[in-house]
Amino acid sequence: IRVGYPEVIYCEGKTVEQVKSIVEFMLTKNKNIIATRASEEMYKAVKEICEDANYNKLGRIITIRRTEEKYTDSYIAIVAAGTSDLPVVEEAAETAKILGNRVEKVIDVGVAGIHRLLANLDIIRGAKVIIVVAGMEGALASVVGGLVDKPIIAVPTSVGYGANFGGLSSLLSMLNSCASGVSVVNIDNGFGAAYIASMINKI
Amino acid sequence: IRVGYPEVIYCEGKTVEQVKSIVEFMLTKNKNIIATRASEEMYKAVKEICEDANYNKLGRIITIRRTEEKYTDSYIAIVAAGTSDLPVVEEAAETAKILGNRVEKVIDVGVAGIHRLLANLDIIRGAKVIIVVAGMEGALASVVGGLVDKPIIAVPTSVGYGANFGGLSSLLSMLNSCASGVSVVNIDNGFGAAYIASMINKI
Amino acid sequence: IRVGYPEVIYCEGKTVEQVKSIVEFMLTKNKNIIATRASEEMYKAVKEICEDANYNKLGRIITIRRTEEKYTDSYIAIVAAGTSDLPVVEEAAETAKILGNRVEKVIDVGVAGIHRLLANLDIIRGAKVIIVVAGMEGALASVVGGLVDKPIIAVPTSVGYGANFGGLSSLLSMLNSCASGVSVVNIDNGFGAAYIASMINKI
Amino acid sequence: IRVGYPEVIYCEGKTVEQVKSIVEFMLTKNKNIIATRASEEMYKAVKEICEDANYNKLGRIITIRRTEEKYTDSYIAIVAAGTSDLPVVEEAAETAKILGNRVEKVIDVGVAGIHRLLANLDIIRGAKVIIVVAGMEGALASVVGGLVDKPIIAVPTSVGYGANFGGLSSLLSMLNSCASGVSVVNIDNGFGAAYIASMINKI
Amino acid sequence: IRVGYPEVIYCEGKTVEQVKSIVEFMLTKNKNIIATRASEEMYKAVKEICEDANYNKLGRIITIRRTEEKYTDSYIAIVAAGTSDLPVVEEAAETAKILGNRVEKVIDVGVAGIHRLLANLDIIRGAKVIIVVAGMEGALASVVGGLVDKPIIAVPTSVGYGANFGGLSSLLSMLNSCASGVSVVNIDNGFGAAYIASMINKI
Amino acid sequence: IRVGYPEVIYCEGKTVEQVKSIVEFMLTKNKNIIATRASEEMYKAVKEICEDANYNKLGRIITIRRTEEKYTDSYIAIVAAGTSDLPVVEEAAETAKILGNRVEKVIDVGVAGIHRLLANLDIIRGAKVIIVVAGMEGALASVVGGLVDKPIIAVPTSVGYGANFGGLSSLLSMLNSCASGVSVVNIDNGFGAAYIASMINKI
Amino acid sequence: IRVGYPEVIYCEGKTVEQVKSIVEFMLTKNKNIIATRASEEMYKAVKEICEDANYNKLGRIITIRRTEEKYTDSYIAIVAAGTSDLPVVEEAAETAKILGNRVEKVIDVGVAGIHRLLANLDIIRGAKVIIVVAGMEGALASVVGGLVDKPIIAVPTSVGYGANFGGLSSLLSMLNSCASGVSVVNIDNGFGAAYIASMINKI
Amino acid sequence: IRVGYPEVIYCEGKTVEQVKSIVEFMLTKNKNIIATRASEEMYKAVKEICEDANYNKLGRIITIRRTEEKYTDSYIAIVAAGTSDLPVVEEAAETAKILGNRVEKVIDVGVAGIHRLLANLDIIRGAKVIIVVAGMEGALASVVGGLVDKPIIAVPTSVGYGANFGGLSSLLSMLNSCASGVSVVNIDNGFGAAYIASMINKI
Ligand SMILES: Nc1ncnc2c1ncn2[C@@H]1O[C@H](COP(=O)(O)O)[C@@H](O)[C@H]1O
Ligand SMILES: Nc1ncnc2c1ncn2[C@@H]1O[C@H](COP(=O)(O)O)[C@@H](O)[C@H]1O
Ligand SMILES: Nc1ncnc2c1ncn2[C@@H]1O[C@H](COP(=O)(O)O)[C@@H](O)[C@H]1O
Ligand SMILES: Nc1ncnc2c1ncn2[C@@H]1O[C@H](COP(=O)(O)O)[C@@H](O)[C@H]1O
Ligand SMILES: [Mg+2]
Ligand SMILES: [Mg+2]
Ligand SMILES: [Mg+2]
Ligand SMILES: [Mg+2]
Ligand SMILES: [Mg+2]
Ligand SMILES: [Mg+2]
Ligand SMILES: [Mg+2]
Ligand SMILES: [Mg+2]
Repeated sequence: IRVGYPEVIYCEGKTVEQVKSIVEFMLTKNKNIIATRASEEMYKAVKEICEDANYNKLGRIITIRRTEEKYTDSYIAIVAAGTSDLPVVEEAAETAKILGNRVEKVIDVGVAGIHRLLANLDIIRGAKVIIVVAGMEGALASVVGGLVDKPIIAVPTSVGYGANFGGLSSLLSMLNSCASGVSVVNIDNGFGAAYIASMINKI
Repeated sequence: IRVGYPEVIYCEGKTVEQVKSIVEFMLTKNKNIIATRASEEMYKAVKEICEDANYNKLGRIITIRRTEEKYTDSYIAIVAAGTSDLPVVEEAAETAKILGNRVEKVIDVGVAGIHRLLANLDIIRGAKVIIVVAGMEGALASVVGGLVDKPIIAVPTSVGYGANFGGLSSLLSMLNSCASGVSVVNIDNGFGAAYIASMINKI
Repeated sequence: IRVGYPEVIYCEGKTVEQVKSIVEFMLTKNKNIIATRASEEMYKAVKEICEDANYNKLGRIITIRRTEEKYTDSYIAIVAAGTSDLPVVEEAAETAKILGNRVEKVIDVGVAGIHRLLANLDIIRGAKVIIVVAGMEGALASVVGGLVDKPIIAVPTSVGYGANFGGLSSLLSMLNSCASGVSVVNIDNGFGAAYIASMINKI
Repeated sequence: IRVGYPEVIYCEGKTVEQVKSIVEFMLTKNKNIIATRASEEMYKAVKEICEDANYNKLGRIITIRRTEEKYTDSYIAIVAAGTSDLPVVEEAAETAKILGNRVEKVIDVGVAGIHRLLANLDIIRGAKVIIVVAGMEGALASVVGGLVDKPIIAVPTSVGYGANFGGLSSLLSMLNSCASGVSVVNIDNGFGAAYIASMINKI
Repeated sequence: IRVGYPEVIYCEGKTVEQVKSIVEFMLTKNKNIIATRASEEMYKAVKEICEDANYNKLGRIITIRRTEEKYTDSYIAIVAAGTSDLPVVEEAAETAKILGNRVEKVIDVGVAGIHRLLANLDIIRGAKVIIVVAGMEGALASVVGGLVDKPIIAVPTSVGYGANFGGLSSLLSMLNSCASGVSVVNIDNGFGAAYIASMINKI
Repeated sequence: IRVGYPEVIYCEGKTVEQVKSIVEFMLTKNKNIIATRASEEMYKAVKEICEDANYNKLGRIITIRRTEEKYTDSYIAIVAAGTSDLPVVEEAAETAKILGNRVEKVIDVGVAGIHRLLANLDIIRGAKVIIVVAGMEGALASVVGGLVDKPIIAVPTSVGYGANFGGLSSLLSMLNSCASGVSVVNIDNGFGAAYIASMINKI
Repeated sequence: IRVGYPEVIYCEGKTVEQVKSIVEFMLTKNKNIIATRASEEMYKAVKEICEDANYNKLGRIITIRRTEEKYTDSYIAIVAAGTSDLPVVEEAAETAKILGNRVEKVIDVGVAGIHRLLANLDIIRGAKVIIVVAGMEGALASVVGGLVDKPIIAVPTSVGYGANFGGLSSLLSMLNSCASGVSVVNIDNGFGAAYIASMINKI
Repeated sequence: IRVGYPEVIYCEGKTVEQVKSIVEFMLTKNKNIIATRASEEMYKAVKEICEDANYNKLGRIITIRRTEEKYTDSYIAIVAAGTSDLPVVEEAAETAKILGNRVEKVIDVGVAGIHRLLANLDIIRGAKVIIVVAGMEGALASVVGGLVDKPIIAVPTSVGYGANFGGLSSLLSMLNSCASGVSVVNIDNGFGAAYIASMINKI
């Protein structure tokens, strides 16, 4: 059966009580639920009313499954530069999976060590659509874009300091990519990247 | 026969002579050629060495066809806010077409007159992927994103003045879209949007 | 009797004691009092010297009524995109009410789900002046502006992350609105928007 | 008879021919026409097809009247800091007038010579709504806002140099106004300010 | 006897121990000492080694007098917009005084209530040099500059929120002042303003 | 006799005719006249109605003397980094002189060759007030500030390219000067710097 | 024996456990280890598994030596403006040393007191390559660049407030240096500067 | 014989006459001369007084040789992303050569086609120091930095449009490089990069 659209909550700036009661209401609809930017306290509160709620601590995302899903045969590759980018990778991966997509992660392949990236090209090229997650100078999107003929959703991250200006360097870098096939979402927006990638993967 | 990758020239900051001689060399490869941001003088110079070169004046784009193309059945919808956004629309449309895609344009449907947009929903919803072109506040990407379940490639344009800061307002607006399914390319980058849309449309 | 100008305190960056003693002094003038950006501790301190002080926790605003008010027949519509914008909505609503205005709230009508907005058009169109509160890409101001022929006071909010840059994306979006009739106040300035709307509503 | 909504053309980035043919089409509707940011050449071209077209050279605005208008009794005051702000004043004034409003201009009253402003307070206070036009530091909006109890539409102008950054200093200044009752439109947007002021003046 | 140059410590980012030991060393020189941006803990630590150290809590400044001073006859006027600007006023006042200057404060005279400012003109005009402290839109510097023929040192403050961007609006405003005679120091730099004013006052 | 305040015109964005007619009117007042940012055409037009008008081509400034002046004994030193800063130096020097000040220029003493600066210290230290003009990284203000105990008016210039961002680098540099005694005016504002320096020099 | 490349960990945003386990793994390679931006807790955790780990508290850097090193004869000079820049100096010095370089520090030689710098010129000129560390206006890089004919690696620091914008003023200043021979690394990046300096020093 | 320091003129913003007369004076010193950002007219004027002056049209640089030079054995590699970066490449190459360095250019090796870069690795790795020139997203610096163990001087160029913001995207990208060994000069500053590279190459 086809995976329907999940209910989505963006938890940032909400109280534990608010998140809990929104989930409570959503549970009545019998649809999948995603709660992004969720703290552990929020997860504990949700767990009280929903035993099978899942929490990805690194990705700070709660997922609740209510529809039986069959994963796609084709997959989304999530390619990431460094270990500091993992929270965004996890937000993207959990989102992609609850939306019914097979996911392959290729992490720690930053451009400063291009051979690690080249060694993983097959798995990246095998994907139907690719999510590239990178902070600092965000060069990874361009390099992957140059190596692969698939649509790339680039996610700049706020990883860095100084002239990084909260992810601005990576964002501008990706928007100015000299490689064709790269489009960009907001800084740290793993959820959004996965949502679009899912749309494309399911075509 | 399948449409191969075209040769692409970005003419901004090149001289007429440079463009002409690059085209001359490319013609030897017998592939399609796209030259974006091309002036009329450039077109005239190219015409001298290639009779069947085409020029879209508004879109400032030269196209030369060398492979026999069969357009896709599915189509890319290009949705634009105002008449000032037309140069970007044309750059996108010409690119999409030479890449072998059927294109449907829906123009002058800015959010200040939402009913015009709603009246054209069927044609937009019928597309496999949608390019949204908008300057000023760039709200159109979010509105279309809320109405349609297809991947949207948003192109901010530099149309506007004052606090528009050369397209920044529209760019930030699109990156912060509250609608899921929107990814963004550089300001005025009609070519890039069409390239990605073509990748998706041909899946 | 006509509602006079209230005394207003902006509590941010003041100590609990400072706020309390300013209120104490103001109480001697027998006028309405508004204290914005007030914490619960501030409210408790004020309560000690003024039993009938009111506190809107979400809007972080203390109000004290000293003049008997008759609400206007015409009303101010406060239209908001998402639940995260509610603190600004509440600040605006409390301000508008203590200034003697009838207020109608239309919330959770963000442009990503335009039909909810269209379903509430009558109540919005019935207003004499409209306050639009929106974060992220702030597109709501343009959309409402295109649907209604009333003056619109747009309040960008700091809701969002990444390329939102503390409300900048929404602010620029609203300043560049392609819809006529939209003017803008500072980010998160619900108080200021209500003050102007009240001036217009009472003409 | 009531003054209906005019047709509006924003001429920036359009060719003389485009403006002429848009006007030609609009003339068939028998409504008032406003063309902002219009060059003299555009005016001459329009004049060929419409003898009674008017051109305000300083304000770079073409107006064509087709509905018999009765000006409002109440008036809009347009208050401006310096002579360099006059183009924006004229754009606002012409727009306000063709929309059927009585207009009173108070110019050259920048805050560096506050007494000139104080000497003109009566005419400003007598207005139903006030447009304040100022470049450089834009302080005039706050000063007028402190002296008058009427809604103020502030228009920052791009007049200045250096740390003015194309009107940014004036824009930020007006958005942060410590005076209540001030809302802001885009840099140099005299048209937009007049449109909103007209809405308020006609209540 | 002439007041020599004091020793100055900028405490931000230093530990309590570091501040204490720097003061300890400085005490051996028998000169006046100023420690700006000092916390109460720092003051307590300094007090242990120097009984007559003074602390201005609001201005977060420690002063230690070692040279007998005779105040100037002429005075520095410190003019401030609102109560939130008082920390900067106090930093400036303490600095000016330990440098041997007579100081007159004129506070709470923001431009939104120009009459309070006009009522205090005599004391401002009587000064040899004027420090103007203002946040938000910083208009006070221009208004005072227009009313007085004395050199004005303008101090933008970080007071405000949203489009204030940490004092940027006020800073740009003051740099673009249309009034002659205004020069500017860094945001919140009360110390620096007083230092320059002292140089001028002692000419 | 004391030098009174001159009339000042800022010519940028004015037409030749406007400047001419403003000067014509000012001549009736028998006061000194300064016209900054004036083109040669403007000068020629002014010359037609005023034979003794002077033009400093590099400084783009017209001066007309009507009051017999006695220069001050004390002088203003104008210190500049490079030859590209000379237009600003000339604007400042002409302004200072017509205001009745003795002026000493020390040019081409940029910090990249500190010995040239040190060789000129006496003339700089002998001034009552110092104007420092510098573009690029604007370091000269801090270096002079560290060497001299006089008030310094720093003028950032727009000289530079790339990350200079129109004078921003120099402006920020001067605002963050680690040397006490430095206050700043707008980018390229030689006129304003001289005006303040004159106020101080005449104390 | 030649000093090989060390393993490097950037600890910001990692947990104590993560850092500990990465070090644990690296220890198996028997190479030198550098962990930058490390907290004391991290150091304590590392100490448990590696007795001879070193911690530079000010520089927040852990170093572990596994290769016997012979320091270079030539040295890297690290020149710093103020005491607040010391954390960056220490990060650079520790990095340079574990990479096998002799290091000479020249601190507290900010341009506001140029004579201290001139007094230390010999030690600076004797270096093979120079690291200049400075916050606020970052003028030190240009001044040293003008005095010395050696390659200079400039490190802007985030020391400052207000218009410093997190190190931006110093960064722009150094990028616009009028002295030849200056290249720049990211704000506060002492590690990176030392890495490059080591490459040059070992040529 | 050793190549001495050349005389350098930055021609931007100077008149043809100024450049000519500065060169005339410099010729008396019998040293090499470099004039950057020079127009063809400037070259023609210089040619009149110096027959052996050379002009690199693309690099807009005039060079005059007066010292007999012996090129270094080691060389500087200049690596560039695209053909639009060639003017900066030429400025760097001419500068490096007149300073006496052997130069090897590796152009058109942008990261979108990484294999071209990999194919040229030997020539890059053989250099003593590397200049990387790239616009748009500037990723090339990081990729080269990851592949080579030599000091890299990165030159961001202003090539690009939209969110490139005059070279800002490339500049930030290079400053945030995740590869060790990369330092950065100002946007388009080919001269400065070559000057530093020469210092290093001659060690
Ligand atoms: N991490 C995220 N980034 C951007 N948008 C999100 C994220 N998580 C959820 N959303 C969007 O936020 C909406 C929910 O917002 P709210 O109603 O405030 O919880 C959803 O419809 C999503 O489209
Ligand atoms: N000066 C102006 N500033 C902002 N918006 C304007 C201006 N002039 C016209 N407009 C708007 O631009 C629209 C016309 O745009 P267009 O169809 O591109 O000519 C009108 O509906 C107006 O709302
Ligand atoms: N170069 C300049 N920079 C800044 N302000 C100036 C300059 N020249 C003149 N002014 C100011 O501009 C005012 C004249 O402006 P305006 O009436 O528009 O000619 C004078 O009172 C001066 O204070
Ligand atoms: N303080 C620092 N600033 C910039 N880069 C650093 C710093 N410390 C370590 N690095 C780089 O970060 C990499 C390690 O990152 P990670 O794998 O996330 O620990 C190393 O290869 C270094 O090149
Ligand atoms: Mg690709
Ligand atoms: Mg959608
Ligand atoms: Mg409307
Ligand atoms: Mg008011
Ligand atoms: Mg004055
Ligand atoms: Mg000094
Ligand atoms: Mg040097
Ligand atoms: Mg390397």
